[in-house]
Amino acid sequence: MMNFPEYKDSLRKLKTVVYSFGEKINNVVDHPLFEPHINSAGLTYELAHDPRYEDLMTATSHLTGEKINRFTHIHQSTGDLVKKVKMLRMIAQKTGTCFQRCVGFDAMNAIYSVTYEMDQKNGTDYHTRFKEYVKAVQRTDMMVAGSMTDPKGDRSKSPSEQPDPDAFVHVVEKREDGIVIRGAKSHQTGILNSHEMLIMPTEALMEADQDYAVCCAVPVDAEGILHIFGRQTNDTRRLEEGAGIDLGNIKYGTVGGECLTVLNDVFVPWEKVFMCGEYEFAGMLVERFSSYHRQNYGACKTGIADVIIGAAAGISQYNGAAKASHIKDKVADMIHMQETLYCCSIACSAEGSPTAAGNYYVDTMLANCGKLNITRFIYEICRLAHDIAGGYVATLPSEKDLKHPEIGKYVGKYHKGVPDVPAEHRIRMGRLLECLTGGTALLESMHGAGSPQAMKIMLLRQANLNHKFKLACTLAGIAPAEKK
Amino acid sequence: MMNFPEYKDSLRKLKTVVYSFGEKINNVVDHPLFEPHINSAGLTYELAHDPRYEDLMTATSHLTGEKINRFTHIHQSTGDLVKKVKMLRMIAQKTGTCFQRCVGFDAMNAIYSVTYEMDQKNGTDYHTRFKEYVKAVQRTDMMVAGSMTDPKGDRSKSPSEQPDPDAFVHVVEKREDGIVIRGAKSHQTGILNSHEMLIMPTEALMEADQDYAVCCAVPVDAEGILHIFGRQTNDTRRLEEGAGIDLGNIKYGTVGGECLTVLNDVFVPWEKVFMCGEYEFAGMLVERFSSYHRQNYGACKTGIADVIIGAAAGISQYNGAAKASHIKDKVADMIHMQETLYCCSIACSAEGSPTAAGNYYVDTMLANCGKLNITRFIYEICRLAHDIAGGYVATLPSEKDLKHPEIGKYVGKYHKGVPDVPAEHRIRMGRLLECLTGGTALLESMHGAGSPQAMKIMLLRQANLNHKFKLACTLAGIAPAEKK
Amino acid sequence: MMNFPEYKDSLRKLKTVVYSFGEKINNVVDHPLFEPHINSAGLTYELAHDPRYEDLMTATSHLTGEKINRFTHIHQSTGDLVKKVKMLRMIAQKTGTCFQRCVGFDAMNAIYSVTYEMDQKNGTDYHTRFKEYVKAVQRTDMMVAGSMTDPKGDRSKSPSEQPDPDAFVHVVEKREDGIVIRGAKSHQTGILNSHEMLIMPTEALMEADQDYAVCCAVPVDAEGILHIFGRQTNDTRRLEEGAGIDLGNIKYGTVGGECLTVLNDVFVPWEKVFMCGEYEFAGMLVERFSSYHRQNYGACKTGIADVIIGAAAGISQYNGAAKASHIKDKVADMIHMQETLYCCSIACSAEGSPTAAGNYYVDTMLANCGKLNITRFIYEICRLAHDIAGGYVATLPSEKDLKHPEIGKYVGKYHKGVPDVPAEHRIRMGRLLECLTGGTALLESMHGAGSPQAMKIMLLRQANLNHKFKLACTLAGIAPAEKK
Amino acid sequence: MMNFPEYKDSLRKLKTVVYSFGEKINNVVDHPLFEPHINSAGLTYELAHDPRYEDLMTATSHLTGEKINRFTHIHQSTGDLVKKVKMLRMIAQKTGTCFQRCVGFDAMNAIYSVTYEMDQKNGTDYHTRFKEYVKAVQRTDMMVAGSMTDPKGDRSKSPSEQPDPDAFVHVVEKREDGIVIRGAKSHQTGILNSHEMLIMPTEALMEADQDYAVCCAVPVDAEGILHIFGRQTNDTRRLEEGAGIDLGNIKYGTVGGECLTVLNDVFVPWEKVFMCGEYEFAGMLVERFSSYHRQNYGACKTGIADVIIGAAAGISQYNGAAKASHIKDKVADMIHMQETLYCCSIACSAEGSPTAAGNYYVDTMLANCGKLNITRFIYEICRLAHDIAGGYVATLPSEKDLKHPEIGKYVGKYHKGVPDVPAEHRIRMGRLLECLTGGTALLESMHGAGSPQAMKIMLLRQANLNHKFKLACTLAGIAPAEKK
Repeated sequence: MMNFPEYKDSLRKLKTVVYSFGEKINNVVDHPLFEPHINSAGLTYELAHDPRYEDLMTATSHLTGEKINRFTHIHQSTGDLVKKVKMLRMIAQKTGTCFQRCVGFDAMNAIYSVTYEMDQKNGTDYHTRFKEYVKAVQRTDMMVAGSMTDPKGDRSKSPSEQPDPDAFVHVVEKREDGIVIRGAKSHQTGILNSHEMLIMPTEALMEADQDYAVCCAVPVDAEGILHIFGRQTNDTRRLEEGAGIDLGNIKYGTVGGECLTVLNDVFVPWEKVFMCGEYEFAGMLVERFSSYHRQNYGACKTGIADVIIGAAAGISQYNGAAKASHIKDKVADMIHMQETLYCCSIACSAEGSPTAAGNYYVDTMLANCGKLNITRFIYEICRLAHDIAGGYVATLPSEKDLKHPEIGKYVGKYHKGVPDVPAEHRIRMGRLLECLTGGTALLESMHGAGSPQAMKIMLLRQANLNHKFKLACTLAGIAPAEKK
Repeated sequence: MMNFPEYKDSLRKLKTVVYSFGEKINNVVDHPLFEPHINSAGLTYELAHDPRYEDLMTATSHLTGEKINRFTHIHQSTGDLVKKVKMLRMIAQKTGTCFQRCVGFDAMNAIYSVTYEMDQKNGTDYHTRFKEYVKAVQRTDMMVAGSMTDPKGDRSKSPSEQPDPDAFVHVVEKREDGIVIRGAKSHQTGILNSHEMLIMPTEALMEADQDYAVCCAVPVDAEGILHIFGRQTNDTRRLEEGAGIDLGNIKYGTVGGECLTVLNDVFVPWEKVFMCGEYEFAGMLVERFSSYHRQNYGACKTGIADVIIGAAAGISQYNGAAKASHIKDKVADMIHMQETLYCCSIACSAEGSPTAAGNYYVDTMLANCGKLNITRFIYEICRLAHDIAGGYVATLPSEKDLKHPEIGKYVGKYHKGVPDVPAEHRIRMGRLLECLTGGTALLESMHGAGSPQAMKIMLLRQANLNHKFKLACTLAGIAPAEKK
Repeated sequence: MMNFPEYKDSLRKLKTVVYSFGEKINNVVDHPLFEPHINSAGLTYELAHDPRYEDLMTATSHLTGEKINRFTHIHQSTGDLVKKVKMLRMIAQKTGTCFQRCVGFDAMNAIYSVTYEMDQKNGTDYHTRFKEYVKAVQRTDMMVAGSMTDPKGDRSKSPSEQPDPDAFVHVVEKREDGIVIRGAKSHQTGILNSHEMLIMPTEALMEADQDYAVCCAVPVDAEGILHIFGRQTNDTRRLEEGAGIDLGNIKYGTVGGECLTVLNDVFVPWEKVFMCGEYEFAGMLVERFSSYHRQNYGACKTGIADVIIGAAAGISQYNGAAKASHIKDKVADMIHMQETLYCCSIACSAEGSPTAAGNYYVDTMLANCGKLNITRFIYEICRLAHDIAGGYVATLPSEKDLKHPEIGKYVGKYHKGVPDVPAEHRIRMGRLLECLTGGTALLESMHGAGSPQAMKIMLLRQANLNHKFKLACTLAGIAPAEKK
Repeated sequence: MMNFPEYKDSLRKLKTVVYSFGEKINNVVDHPLFEPHINSAGLTYELAHDPRYEDLMTATSHLTGEKINRFTHIHQSTGDLVKKVKMLRMIAQKTGTCFQRCVGFDAMNAIYSVTYEMDQKNGTDYHTRFKEYVKAVQRTDMMVAGSMTDPKGDRSKSPSEQPDPDAFVHVVEKREDGIVIRGAKSHQTGILNSHEMLIMPTEALMEADQDYAVCCAVPVDAEGILHIFGRQTNDTRRLEEGAGIDLGNIKYGTVGGECLTVLNDVFVPWEKVFMCGEYEFAGMLVERFSSYHRQNYGACKTGIADVIIGAAAGISQYNGAAKASHIKDKVADMIHMQETLYCCSIACSAEGSPTAAGNYYVDTMLANCGKLNITRFIYEICRLAHDIAGGYVATLPSEKDLKHPEIGKYVGKYHKGVPDVPAEHRIRMGRLLECLTGGTALLESMHGAGSPQAMKIMLLRQANLNHKFKLACTLAGIAPAEKK
């Protein structure tokens, strides 16, 4: 298992092509824009060596028997699923933001079971290939990005109907030694500081979309790949001279660091291809990956909510208002929503079950239910945090003003709350809250792991409405012959 | 284990004193007002003999090794806690209402652990006594009512400060052979068709309230006890001649059948006394019982919600509106809330842990979180059911009009929806929904197992706000010396 | 203007055919089931003679210059629209329930303007006829029921496509002296104690539905008409001997008293026909009537909410809990929702405008917006009332138990809160709340004046999305040529 | 009345001392950080000369009979109050952000009535002075900032109890020619581009706080005053070279441009002092100002919501998803909330009434009710906008990437939706939405014109709970002697 310095070194060896603000970035690792994202992903390496977290952060490979970083593990029990949830919450409490590494983790577990079922049906050998890939990931402890979301073009059209055939990633050539793919993947979390990306289709496919049914692994610095870094809320504060307090979450930043990753005719050797044309399994792969990924949100977002609640409650104390009953009531409401989210992640894990391949899969209904709550409750938690903290979060002067030789004293004097807390603490806490509850963070809660409507469709599909109807018929005295 | 007929027979042997509408009821078992409640409690006996539900409905006694009805079991693992949840949901799907027997079940598990901890501290032997009591309950398979809520008088005053000392149940005499208690218990669910009641204090107590710290078991027909049956929404429809369709939930009725149970100087022998004066353990007992009881609501109410959703979706089909996108969206919203409730019950069970006495206890935070959601989501689910079903639920003519030789044809003709479903089905389903979503049912969701504010207080107590504050300090760069 | 006794006398003269519980009711006026509805409608007569309310309750006819009951008035200004709102809230504060008379009031104002516009387009003379009808209503001060909702059969089909052609009221014969209509009207509020009914189509119609485009007035006791009374929550409590406390809202009851009104080939003379075949005006008539009617809900329901809030706050005081901060917070939330509803009714009135016929019409967008809020906020207000009041509302023994010579003392003793308030007051207030927040009352808020989806469709139709899109384009720097 | 160029010229003449990012800004008018705020305030000058808006934008002075900019008007009728609402919505539709000038407008109207009532009671002549001041404002058409919010220090202490006496603005010296004040005002909207500031106390005061009861006018560039500009979400994007698309709201920016304004012993001549020591009128002034100011939020925020809805609906069209039923449903929900907010502003205006001084004042209850809705619905509207728009809003590459000679083509290709809309349009619309729904904008909705708890207190104070209680007593049959 790598530690944080080894992880950073391993990134330096890559030739990843990244653009940001119209410039090609030569050194990703030491660029201030990317530093927070590397720091937070890095914590997944660092904590794996911390004896306090050994049970959560590590596991024993079922393939090799080796001790591995849990982020490379294939779940062997509902206990593993529950530990994943607790691990994610614990890390998020320390980062206050996305640490990115769950995406590839989820992709691996989803592909693991789907390749098995594909092989069972078609007599292919994707699963054996994929097990080899998993062993390599576990051995090298590399960071794998999960790459699902295509740009999608016109949402009213399927991949094969798009005016631009590249709106979804597709196979443009099948060669003896491998395949060539083209297209792009959007919103690629953590890809800048990953080693490989696991490409998957983004939706259920029909026969006409066969070329779009592709799942494979490629290095993030493979030929033909370029990454374009997306802007985040207040991103360039990191580029300001002496940036510190104004960053809010000083070390770990906001959200995950997303790229548009362009795949210009990228070659993938067959041993790293895990689906190629099996369109009828695309939907299953999407559902498996999504459900694993939706499991996470009641874990990591709950950890972030711990920080938000701590910051809001802290500010109320700095303001001298912590004992006001309406403040306590709002804090209770925040805790209530946060723990409800946590319940969903725990429940979908505890109710998990083995797939045909033997690895454990979450309860689809409950995982989707949880993520749908995220898209509402995180906004509510942020709203209540704003309410409790007060308007100063929106109008704070810059750190430069606070530290200015002449006017700094006024910034300090007039931002002070209770006498025993320095104004700087109150300002720092306000900036942290600004960072945790702002634009990008909210949007990530909404659309990460799928948009609300995707979950609603899953809920309707998973609920056995006919069974419910029959229950009602029985109680109402309606003859069982009646069917829905 | 008793079956349903044996259960009914056992009730006939009791001399329970019950008043309803100003009359003393001589035969509880065959009275139409009580029949639905006996039917639903009876299902807990009947299903224990159904091989399909053996795993959920029965358990092995850790005291005797015998196979017992799960409702008399002391939880031996988180698996037992999860099975309790699944059992409750399953039964509720069949009754569409409260089946009452969980109250005593929860009381037994709470008293089991608290007596152990009392004995540990004080050298008493309550726990041994209580184990004997549990054995007797398991052997006879009797139904035990959990009796916690006192009338409480002036809510701004503690028990010992009340103008009327009987506003809370208290010990009025300690004798060599036992104690004498006085007071009343409110909202006694299922007490009419129980054999014994387990009396517990209703809130944390101070030294001055010592006499109010009493926990004991008494037969429901003990001398000095009388029960006064409360009115429910549309209760007297059961007394109407030929009552059928208009009842909605024809066999099982609405809610649990609650009594005000008056305890007029009731004698309790020492072997059935499990707390007497240990006021400092009253709060613990209340918290344990409440948390077990709050665990249930995401189980049984989710089962009832299955019926409500089935009825609403069924009506939308009878109306020819099932494919309207807004209907599907509302059904998805109902499922979303329902499964969120279920998540809370599963999670607090899966995250349960052993008490000092060895039995398993739910996660307090998550159990309270779940019940708080109930007090909101059940109202929302009922609101959406009303929305989907349409206004006819509120204006349906009586069954007598439907069956009237002259005007019945109009009632049928003008309540028909799609051609292939008889109007009577649509009417029956409307009546079922009326029954499940009406007044008493809503209020029970609000206050059963404790009112919302009680849960909020628990959430604030369980959340480690100081820990959250420190997490925020670390990220904001505030020196750790800072304490809250 | 009639007073209450004259109104009752006038009802005695009718030969209205009413069925309830399978029996034909000979004397509507003195039947205990109907008494509360007559009492509340009667208040619209009584208060018109009360000098304190003269400004709200009366108006000057623009047709005759006479002083009339405002419920028969054709709105002449936005001031009239605002007074309507204030009148409805004031009466509802006194009845705590529906007083029914607004339906016909709204029907008259809608038909007034639509007949004018029909005549303008088609050269018909409906408007002149209708003015004569209005004069008659104003002169006799009769109560007019507005009859819009058809049974509708299969909701996926238009009137002319229904398997049963009578699922919507339609013209079956046109004669020289008038027309013959057949079908039924559902949910007929106040029809039992009305003199006439104004029949209108229930939805926008196409050419094939021409026979369904019928608007006319008929006496409620015309030949061929029969009314079947719908059951309400706890309706038969009124039939219990000595019924009093258990009724809750003792004098005025729950909701409006709805009937299914069957029209078996009813003859209507031409002078009372106001639309016959003009299908292209059906949608306009529905929209006008609905918007006027939706205006009301933020008025009368706000008045009822005044009572609900007063009862909940009163109980919290009886409980000794009125000073608890969470109680005050919930009361504030109830007030907040209530006054938001009121804002909608005031705003749609103040923003009203004259129709082509000269009478004043509410702002359609804002009226619909208000009713949509009703379908959510009333449920929330009732939920909070339940929360504040406590569980005893659901388990109260009967009045007979309270007054029982032996056990009455226990009912009283154990339902007492603070010392200076008799238990009976606490019980009465609990019963009132039970009555105001139960099943039928909720459903009425949901579907009265149209179901939520109907309002959503109106909101989308009224909002100029293209205008909003252009505003966004301008700010984003997108060339104005871009169109949506 | 000034036009926009004249307004800018007038600002150039001021010697306002402003700090931003630790630097003293010499030329406020041409600084890119302040430009958007000047542009939006400028529109209040520009539109006053647009004949299309003459009725909304101008009024006739009741003091001079001159035509004036409505922002300097003293309301003479409910019609004036309603026009204010419509004017604010109209301007906000064009700016998509705060245009700042309502604060001084509201301060003037509040002070106008309170000075009159002070004089009536105390025989002072503040009102005459203030009328002269109003005349001057009307004549010069200057922009007046309303300055209410003090830094407040420890929220659990009153002004005179604060460890730092300057936590609230107070009089430090009374001289023959005037007074000297010290302290600071927080969150000073639009102060950078105002001419004068109207200082008011921030809360109700007790006798001990007498020195804090000060209301007066001072030029923003008076000696002793310095302004420190607060950071906003994504503020420094305006400083990026070639900034355009990434700004979102290109011309008008985000929120109002707030400063911490420090008052270091500032002299104010008596003719500009409108309260000095009359502590018992401080609460009245705060209530009047706040209610006027809360009136605005359902106006300007509704105008901004028009833009947000237009942008979200526009993006759904660009995405090819505009016809999806769930999109339409969410748009309807947004409209519903927006128009509910508008209802509140219209209603509190239409229900306004004259003060003793003769100018018109809004209905306090309804105005507070409206602002409380803002603190919830704007968050919900933004949440739904995020939902509809999709995740790309959070991960968009920079404009520099879009325009990059090599990679620009990929940014364009993979951000394209439907074929007939250029990717740039979709990107621009996404950026606009990012700007309108981000951090500062949300916080402003929460705390501008007062925080939620302030409104709740007002609602409880305005509601006549005793009246409501009596209504309930009457219906429940509880003797009227009973009092609450």
